[in-house]
Amino acid sequence: MQKSSIPSTMMQVPISLNHFLERAGTYHGKTEIVSRLPDKSLHRHTYADFHRRAKALAEVLVKAGIQPGDRVATLMWNHYAHLECYFGIPAAGAVMHNLNLRLFPHDIAFIVNHAKDRFLLVDDVLLPLLAQFAKDVNFERIIVVPLTGQPVPAPYEDYEKFIGAATGDFHYVELDENAPCGMCYTSGTTGNPKGVVYSHRSTVLHSLVAALPGGISISGGDVVVPVVPMFHANAWGLPFIATFMGAKQVFPGPHLDSESLLDLYQRERVTVTGGVPTIWLSLLQTLRTNPGKYDLVPGMRMLVGGSAAPETLFRGFDEFGLVVGTAWGMTETSPLGTVSALKPWMQALPKDQQYAYRIKQGMAAPLVDIRLVGDEGEVPWDGKSVGEIQVRGPWITGSYHEMPVSEANFTTDGWLRTGDVGTIDPEGFLQLTDRTKDLIKSGGEWISSVDLENNLMGHPAVLEAAVIAVPHPRWAERPLAVVVLRPGHSASADELREHLAKTYAKWQLPDAFEFVKEIPRTSTGKFLKTKLREMYKDWKWEQE
Amino acid sequence: MQKSSIPSTMMQVPISLNHFLERAGTYHGKTEIVSRLPDKSLHRHTYADFHRRAKALAEVLVKAGIQPGDRVATLMWNHYAHLECYFGIPAAGAVMHNLNLRLFPHDIAFIVNHAKDRFLLVDDVLLPLLAQFAKDVNFERIIVVPLTGQPVPAPYEDYEKFIGAATGDFHYVELDENAPCGMCYTSGTTGNPKGVVYSHRSTVLHSLVAALPGGISISGGDVVVPVVPMFHANAWGLPFIATFMGAKQVFPGPHLDSESLLDLYQRERVTVTGGVPTIWLSLLQTLRTNPGKYDLVPGMRMLVGGSAAPETLFRGFDEFGLVVGTAWGMTETSPLGTVSALKPWMQALPKDQQYAYRIKQGMAAPLVDIRLVGDEGEVPWDGKSVGEIQVRGPWITGSYHEMPVSEANFTTDGWLRTGDVGTIDPEGFLQLTDRTKDLIKSGGEWISSVDLENNLMGHPAVLEAAVIAVPHPRWAERPLAVVVLRPGHSASADELREHLAKTYAKWQLPDAFEFVKEIPRTSTGKFLKTKLREMYKDWKWEQE
Repeated sequence: MQKSSIPSTMMQVPISLNHFLERAGTYHGKTEIVSRLPDKSLHRHTYADFHRRAKALAEVLVKAGIQPGDRVATLMWNHYAHLECYFGIPAAGAVMHNLNLRLFPHDIAFIVNHAKDRFLLVDDVLLPLLAQFAKDVNFERIIVVPLTGQPVPAPYEDYEKFIGAATGDFHYVELDENAPCGMCYTSGTTGNPKGVVYSHRSTVLHSLVAALPGGISISGGDVVVPVVPMFHANAWGLPFIATFMGAKQVFPGPHLDSESLLDLYQRERVTVTGGVPTIWLSLLQTLRTNPGKYDLVPGMRMLVGGSAAPETLFRGFDEFGLVVGTAWGMTETSPLGTVSALKPWMQALPKDQQYAYRIKQGMAAPLVDIRLVGDEGEVPWDGKSVGEIQVRGPWITGSYHEMPVSEANFTTDGWLRTGDVGTIDPEGFLQLTDRTKDLIKSGGEWISSVDLENNLMGHPAVLEAAVIAVPHPRWAERPLAVVVLRPGHSASADELREHLAKTYAKWQLPDAFEFVKEIPRTSTGKFLKTKLREMYKDWKWEQE
Repeated sequence: MQKSSIPSTMMQVPISLNHFLERAGTYHGKTEIVSRLPDKSLHRHTYADFHRRAKALAEVLVKAGIQPGDRVATLMWNHYAHLECYFGIPAAGAVMHNLNLRLFPHDIAFIVNHAKDRFLLVDDVLLPLLAQFAKDVNFERIIVVPLTGQPVPAPYEDYEKFIGAATGDFHYVELDENAPCGMCYTSGTTGNPKGVVYSHRSTVLHSLVAALPGGISISGGDVVVPVVPMFHANAWGLPFIATFMGAKQVFPGPHLDSESLLDLYQRERVTVTGGVPTIWLSLLQTLRTNPGKYDLVPGMRMLVGGSAAPETLFRGFDEFGLVVGTAWGMTETSPLGTVSALKPWMQALPKDQQYAYRIKQGMAAPLVDIRLVGDEGEVPWDGKSVGEIQVRGPWITGSYHEMPVSEANFTTDGWLRTGDVGTIDPEGFLQLTDRTKDLIKSGGEWISSVDLENNLMGHPAVLEAAVIAVPHPRWAERPLAVVVLRPGHSASADELREHLAKTYAKWQLPDAFEFVKEIPRTSTGKFLKTKLREMYKDWKWEQE
């Protein structure tokens, strides 16, 4: 009997974004894409329009000399033209490079030059931002999306005229599925930003898995609003996922305030939305102060990511019939690393026990492997042992663009060191505690700042709270809580300390509470702890 | 500005069944797997058991000398041990080769020898079948699953003892995602059976896409019963899909009669099941003759495939609150080619118009490209023009095992010629009309036998109907209807002809009606039209 292996007879067909662009035009042509413009009016068109215009963009980019693998940058809010770039730039064989408009201008310039972006597509309302770094970069062409309807000022080109030159004579570039299709830079708070380059393969696999039931779960019947910016980890992939599934997409443009978002949710019958905890905290506040004002789709799912969200957020939205679901990831992970979805048997648990699982970041997404590593190697999944979260999978970065692979970021056996820290329970649910650098080391013991924050935000008088480590002569570090009170509420440091003392040991409690008007934020709305640490680095403790 | 392309920074991690076997054990250990045994009792265990036993099978196969790519055959009904083979044989690096127990023994022997199967795993209740072809094949080892609990007769080995020898010392084979993991032979009615070899890549992509909302749509909360045999196109992938998603699986074993199935659905609270139209027709009959007897999960989804199903089937189950959904594919397509799911706007249509879409085979699955080709090239998607269905995609076969690629089966530009014929409407919904060889060519015009059959089965007195082409001296071919009447009903040929005449032109009507007790079936329960054509090939028409 012959023992040789045999080849599979399956076709070798690359998986690519182009397939889904064609699919959107072929099967979902009637589905709407709605965008809030800078003047707050709504721009409406369909997947048929999107399909035609994205291919027109691809055609004129190729005719303008864009070669396979060239980088084409976008500097845009969330809207229809940005979606056209999401598919049109890769359809030209090029790499769509989102620029984060909330970075400092000199950081944007660094990123543009590091990525060697050739063209820029930019919103007209962002030209003042471009002006702040234009002299430090050298785009060959700058194409402006006329969102305001005003004439595009020279020497810039009008996006509508640019794609209007297309004749329909376009053929997709034959590609390897590992060819690059997009890139994002991390907004790392230490060192220079680092580039992550996605491939057609990684983006397709990520989108398919994210759409699955029990994941983010998007069907053609959903109406999806990415509040998370399209320049931030591709808005968690939501524009890709929604397009793949043919779901109606609604973009908030530059209007991310609670009133604008709630108006959009109500008007467009939104069923799924995604954003960071701070946006949702503010939205919940608006719902509470305007009882009965908004008529939202019952059961609208609100995906939260970016950092661990307090249980009060889940409970708060439950009162309004809105369902918060959490996930974990980062630019390096495309970004879906884990998603929290109750297992069937958990749905029979009492509600309070359900919250204990719902607030966790959940199970690794299919195709992603996860492990927790401590000083002594892998730590057990017992819900208590803390370790650094390490991941591997087909949409996890294995290096950074044009940087040597460093052991600070990747293990020798090829896993990504995420820098996030957490526990995994026996059910496989990850719970994020902190970034490694957000852990507070007091007298040799670790204190989780995120835990303390979430507990503080459970106090009725507290709107927002950030806890940071501040150097301490005796204990190395001690926690300091920075607190924003709700309008019309008051609470003393002693009250808050007592509130925490119900849950935490005395040595874990913050030694000081600072009451402030607002907490500085990162470009993506997370608490900017580096800034806080800088602000309080010379703090004088009362008892040293 | 440098114009060179850049590499993606994504990890190169192969997608493989092994990941999902580990996932099943890690995250879904408590979920049940239930199997109906030959004595009708229920065997119950969990994904934790499945995970342990499938890996044990992999370990002992490797220790028994199975090399990567070797073929290991199964001859089994649908049950827990077959599921263990689905994952355990590929985990050993080998190729799981399902043998179709409904083929003629000499065909099975041909297939075993052509595939060069080394080992056989076989149900004890199927040993009498094995005896019918054992002398024509040469398995190195034969391992018997003791489903009845009786001692396994010498010289065969007991499956439980075989996997019981595992020590836990097992490491997955490093693999290329294009490595083969399984194979099926087509039960082609012309020529020898042809082998299709699936890869880890094709199986993973197929399963992920099939699980999507709007597709077969399986979540971890579903309870899935594959009635379609696991030896037939991998039970449409249902065991893979359910395992990937962590859904409870329920296997009917050898008991595919309506009463046994309905009992299983009721007992195990089944939410999704899949089978061919003839099985569902019989099940509907049983529901009707036993009103109120069965308490099924409302909205249970009944996937139908294998051939076009009559509208009466959809309407009939709707009366019982059960939802029939249709799909199209074949062994060569893994098998998902198209799935019918109403688009969101279709759900607002009047119910009758919804049926018009629901009975169609639907849109190409994501990652599958489809086209219709007639004598003059591609035909338009107008819902009327008929052409051969051609497909391409990462889970479509591009050749047959150890056969030269023939233009009869594959186009020169690399698409599979399916031999099925249909129309595609402007919404992209495929409607199957016939196998090319089931079309009736009368006086230069095509008549669809499937259309006529479905219309006939809409007549209250008709249980089953098959329409075939019979040679005719004047018209080349004319349609003959072979009809099984419902018990207790009667209808004459003239009545049936009048029923059809409401819908069809006179030249399209069958010229004769033959009333029979049963229609011969293929191994998978489809009407065996080759047999019928053989039976009626010498038919004498009344008016020639």
